[in-house]
Amino acid sequence: MMNTCIHIEKKSQEEAYITSYRYMELKEEEEKVVDISLKELAKKLEDFAKARDWEKYHSPRNLLLAMVGEVGELSEIFQWRGEVEKGLPNWEESDKEHLGEELSDVLLYLVRLADICGIDLAQATTNKILKNSIKYPPNPLQS
Amino acid sequence: MMNTCIHIEKKSQEEAYITSYRYMELKEEEEKVVDISLKELAKKLEDFAKARDWEKYHSPRNLLLAMVGEVGELSEIFQWRGEVEKGLPNWEESDKEHLGEELSDVLLYLVRLADICGIDLAQATTNKILKNSIKYPPNPLQS
Amino acid sequence: MMNTCIHIEKKSQEEAYITSYRYMELKEEEEKVVDISLKELAKKLEDFAKARDWEKYHSPRNLLLAMVGEVGELSEIFQWRGEVEKGLPNWEESDKEHLGEELSDVLLYLVRLADICGIDLAQATTNKILKNSIKYPPNPLQS
Amino acid sequence: MMNTCIHIEKKSQEEAYITSYRYMELKEEEEKVVDISLKELAKKLEDFAKARDWEKYHSPRNLLLAMVGEVGELSEIFQWRGEVEKGLPNWEESDKEHLGEELSDVLLYLVRLADICGIDLAQATTNKILKNSIKYPPNPLQS
Repeated sequence: MMNTCIHIEKKSQEEAYITSYRYMELKEEEEKVVDISLKELAKKLEDFAKARDWEKYHSPRNLLLAMVGEVGELSEIFQWRGEVEKGLPNWEESDKEHLGEELSDVLLYLVRLADICGIDLAQATTNKILKNSIKYPPNPLQS
Repeated sequence: MMNTCIHIEKKSQEEAYITSYRYMELKEEEEKVVDISLKELAKKLEDFAKARDWEKYHSPRNLLLAMVGEVGELSEIFQWRGEVEKGLPNWEESDKEHLGEELSDVLLYLVRLADICGIDLAQATTNKILKNSIKYPPNPLQS
Repeated sequence: MMNTCIHIEKKSQEEAYITSYRYMELKEEEEKVVDISLKELAKKLEDFAKARDWEKYHSPRNLLLAMVGEVGELSEIFQWRGEVEKGLPNWEESDKEHLGEELSDVLLYLVRLADICGIDLAQATTNKILKNSIKYPPNPLQS
Repeated sequence: MMNTCIHIEKKSQEEAYITSYRYMELKEEEEKVVDISLKELAKKLEDFAKARDWEKYHSPRNLLLAMVGEVGELSEIFQWRGEVEKGLPNWEESDKEHLGEELSDVLLYLVRLADICGIDLAQATTNKILKNSIKYPPNPLQS
């Protein structure tokens, strides 16, 4: 469904003038490795809320409860499956896509919640990993 | 407590030879804006688990339940406070630091869960924001 | 919708032979105070699962994740409302009914989870209240 | 730990005058099947809060977040165990007791949340089971 939406948007943007050159260009873009930083995400979500006049809804506890709601939706994907193997070997492609969406929803509310609270999540996470690495020293046999 | 740990580590690394030059250098580093991308985070967490022989514990449902545990700890910070204002104007510094740690814990398990499931979270999140922007067009009065 | 369903069932059960006497009887029953114990609930849910051959799905972690899913749905009801007053003075009747259903869903999975784990929830809860009353002695000014 | 507390309380109540007759009486009481209804639970929790002047903290969203906190603690018990068998055959007695406490904590906040919202949980749950039994008719092969 998501791909359909994106496809429709692309079609409406491009319509008649699309050429095989343009098509190659788009495909290349899709195949590029996508990455995004925590600060970029926070900025995108702030712009998103501003552009929709949604800032008034984004109080800390509203965002927290919205995140708990998404954690619930994420759990529903796993609830009747018994133990699930790494890499989800027997899952339908549509279930994996659904999973990607629910993971994203949790992330989006989490990043927004941190930002609204004035917490620098990139800094806090970097600190937490360092703290954990001191608390749990690496197994010398593994390195 | 976290700062103490970091401080101790720095001290043990540097001990006697620290000079005012080196001190300036470290301070500069601290003042740099820290950012981290979702793919960098996933890689760090994979290395972290490998170095501790923890990969055997990182099944999808184990990580999901660990994340739910951290969401619980995050909720406990907000539970008896009534409505909380943006920016947490009246919070103790130590409570904000605690909040940063719990937000980070949720993030770390979320990123690890996605990775173990073979989901490209950076791609999924980028797609989800695009999908949302189509589903909820911006308010023309806001732009 | 729920009331409609119940109404339909009642109709199909009673059909032609319903008399005004029977109607009065049913209405009386509806007006009686309903209560249910934890052991009655556990028994009802066991029978419910047996009658549908659902016992095979009811492993501890499946039920736990199903409960987390329902906690998410419960949170969604509260997520964009800001602080909510006791008694929900300004809520629509349909929202209250929805809330009653989501609270019930959490309870049903919780009771079933305890039962499947072999935990006597009535005993555990009675113990926990006693333990709490020792840990937090009553305020002498309140009694 | 819980048993210790209960034991201490009993001791302080009884102290010197305990006789073998009284001991038999207490033991009998312990062996009785304990059950508790949802309305009894709601009443106990209301009295508990009143006696401690805690009613001011018991707003709907405070209680909801407290419940999410307890769901997190419950999940932590299950997080690194992989699939868990019904009846918890290989669990330590102390882990089962801990589990009973966390299940109780979720229940206590859930019952209190419903009560503070003015929702009759016994009625809502009875309705929900009826609704579910209509939505999912029993498997005729099972009965």
